[in-house]
Amino acid sequence: MDIEQANSDATERMMEARPVLVGLGKAREVIPGMGENLLLHAGPPITWDRMSGPLRGAVIGALIFEGKAENEAEARALVEAGEVDFEPCHHHQAVGPMAGVISPSMSVYILENKTHGKKSFSNLNEGYGKVLRYGAYSEDVLTRLRWMEDVMAPVLADAIEASGGIDIRPLLAEALHMGDEGHNRNKAGSLLYTKALAPFVVKVAKDADVASEVLRFLGDNALSVLNPVMAACKAMADAAHGVEGSTIVTVMARNGTDFGIRVSGLGDRWFTAPVAVPQGLYFPGFKAEDAGGDIGDSTITETAGIGGFAMASAPAIVTFVSGTPKDAMNATLEMYEICYAEHKYFTMPPLGFRGTPTGIDVRKVVEKGITPRVNTGIAHKDAGVGQVGAGLVRPPMAIFEEALAAFAEHYGI
Amino acid sequence: MDIEQANSDATERMMEARPVLVGLGKAREVIPGMGENLLLHAGPPITWDRMSGPLRGAVIGALIFEGKAENEAEARALVEAGEVDFEPCHHHQAVGPMAGVISPSMSVYILENKTHGKKSFSNLNEGYGKVLRYGAYSEDVLTRLRWMEDVMAPVLADAIEASGGIDIRPLLAEALHMGDEGHNRNKAGSLLYTKALAPFVVKVAKDADVASEVLRFLGDNALSVLNPVMAACKAMADAAHGVEGSTIVTVMARNGTDFGIRVSGLGDRWFTAPVAVPQGLYFPGFKAEDAGGDIGDSTITETAGIGGFAMASAPAIVTFVSGTPKDAMNATLEMYEICYAEHKYFTMPPLGFRGTPTGIDVRKVVEKGITPRVNTGIAHKDAGVGQVGAGLVRPPMAIFEEALAAFAEHYGI
Repeated sequence: MDIEQANSDATERMMEARPVLVGLGKAREVIPGMGENLLLHAGPPITWDRMSGPLRGAVIGALIFEGKAENEAEARALVEAGEVDFEPCHHHQAVGPMAGVISPSMSVYILENKTHGKKSFSNLNEGYGKVLRYGAYSEDVLTRLRWMEDVMAPVLADAIEASGGIDIRPLLAEALHMGDEGHNRNKAGSLLYTKALAPFVVKVAKDADVASEVLRFLGDNALSVLNPVMAACKAMADAAHGVEGSTIVTVMARNGTDFGIRVSGLGDRWFTAPVAVPQGLYFPGFKAEDAGGDIGDSTITETAGIGGFAMASAPAIVTFVSGTPKDAMNATLEMYEICYAEHKYFTMPPLGFRGTPTGIDVRKVVEKGITPRVNTGIAHKDAGVGQVGAGLVRPPMAIFEEALAAFAEHYGI
Repeated sequence: MDIEQANSDATERMMEARPVLVGLGKAREVIPGMGENLLLHAGPPITWDRMSGPLRGAVIGALIFEGKAENEAEARALVEAGEVDFEPCHHHQAVGPMAGVISPSMSVYILENKTHGKKSFSNLNEGYGKVLRYGAYSEDVLTRLRWMEDVMAPVLADAIEASGGIDIRPLLAEALHMGDEGHNRNKAGSLLYTKALAPFVVKVAKDADVASEVLRFLGDNALSVLNPVMAACKAMADAAHGVEGSTIVTVMARNGTDFGIRVSGLGDRWFTAPVAVPQGLYFPGFKAEDAGGDIGDSTITETAGIGGFAMASAPAIVTFVSGTPKDAMNATLEMYEICYAEHKYFTMPPLGFRGTPTGIDVRKVVEKGITPRVNTGIAHKDAGVGQVGAGLVRPPMAIFEEALAAFAEHYGI
């Protein structure tokens, strides 16, 4: 068996995937296998009793949003009565940042990989702070979600359709030349995204007030494009999945309790271990003791060669996640040690336009003792609070060791 | 006389200037001293017989735009009959990129320095390529100018007013963290500018089609914000002008024939010498022999501590102006040698958030033998063609030597 060739094939497929944002639709109507009693969540599979505070908070909020519960107590009762099913977003070609809860009535972005023909999905971004994906579910959180669903989503759907689709790979490539790394810093990407949609938003909105509100919301949220970018990265990573004999990681995802990975040549098996707690900078009024465990599907960005892996391109991110521009540079340089390829399309001006480290090789992670670098938002550990900061974290080494052992066993090496 | 103190005062005033874009108006109505037969132009004073091709081209185009001539021949005849007056933009608190021709009917941005209370002006940006400011005046150039004037300008005027004004210094500071240097690379700044205006554009436009067109034009032109930025830099440099005993440069400007500077402590006297020809990268179909001489007021950006001086923050610019990211870094490092201060508000993540080199000291330029670095667009040498590329250039050392000699004489040193 030629592992090198398999990894070359897998990373080539990852880089050649061309995910285009083609539409927006209700989760129940567009996500394969979405059920009326199903909530999708970030990370590997998990049951209610083991869920972290922020994931529980997002579940409670989603059940209230769906009209299945009036309040927290009713939501908990519903879950404890076994009336709610939980499955990972990743089991449905979807990804969600932080808690990543997607409920049937939520609108989701639809991306199509034009090279390999597969779809991927992600929900809409709510902005920073007190938001559902960080486990908050107060009335203002729900009001914002309803506005997003009732007012913004129809406009976005029509605008995306009118635009003929938005090609996310070149948008990301451009954003990496504008100080983004595509995970925690999406300022430039969100402006490019807003700019691309604006001429269509204006035309499809029912009136100027709605168009103005939508443009303000998209333009002022420096994470507007995060969710389409995550779905694009999901498409890229998915394209690399299922290559016989490949040791390339195709999923990294956390649910706030467990960090899970999947490996290209090992099918749909998850390798999981307890998450770490991110270290970083806290919003005013919060401190390290408030931080919940590492959470979210957004590590799909690092899986696809951006995010923490592209920090050399985004030195200003250190004002948000801690550290110095040199640390950001070092993060990228270190990731070359554990990746198979340098990206053909994602290049970094500060490194002389070198391609981002792409395609985490489980063998290299174990051999060199270097785990992937991730930069991430930090959720409060309790349900109902929200975002408390942003910082840096790594997955547990154990899952890579376990995956490598499983690989050796599976392939009889 | 305490030159150090004077330079400290001058650069402090330069950095503390806070130029806010407060409106848009017709040049004839808002620029002090604007006359009906007057055309403003970039750089130091010049007569028709010595004007470069691109400046002549822009003059011809402006006279046709004004309806004073039907064609090139009529325009030339009008000028040669002495019917047209020419004065530098800088004599009217204005700046214009490249040829910098501002005619009475053109709309101009109005900026107000909220710290020191003075106004500054610049015209609207037309985009790249075949445009008036590069000396083109074909029918499509004039059609675009008329659309900008008749359709876009009223919308911009109302949108700026509705916005309550746009504070350019923080916008620029943010753009410098997003890979712009503020002169030749204004991708991020133009998106931030479009984003800030979009919610208002939508509301003030007469219909969705007009709003859509204006947002597309602003959003797709990566130089949309260049002109407000230049007017902001003019306000900053102006604030530093007229400080008794200061050797800080407060104007650098070129008309395609001469490069001129003014010095804070030397009043309104110009020091001029022939321009160099920029070296750089050419658009397809053009070559170095097509390049005209260095032209434009856009060197006001370097005068205020950005542009070529902030290239360390914009490594991706080398794809446009030539060189490598290391060259871009070195350009900034070299400029520290000839500047008095490091900017308080304009910082560069790749240099550990060090402030940009700010306030060119004539003494240091001469003593160290280092002239300022400028990056710039390149106009075709002939009237009527337009932009042929972008590159790098320096002013002639002679003007700094002459200024220093004049300073010594004036102050009896």
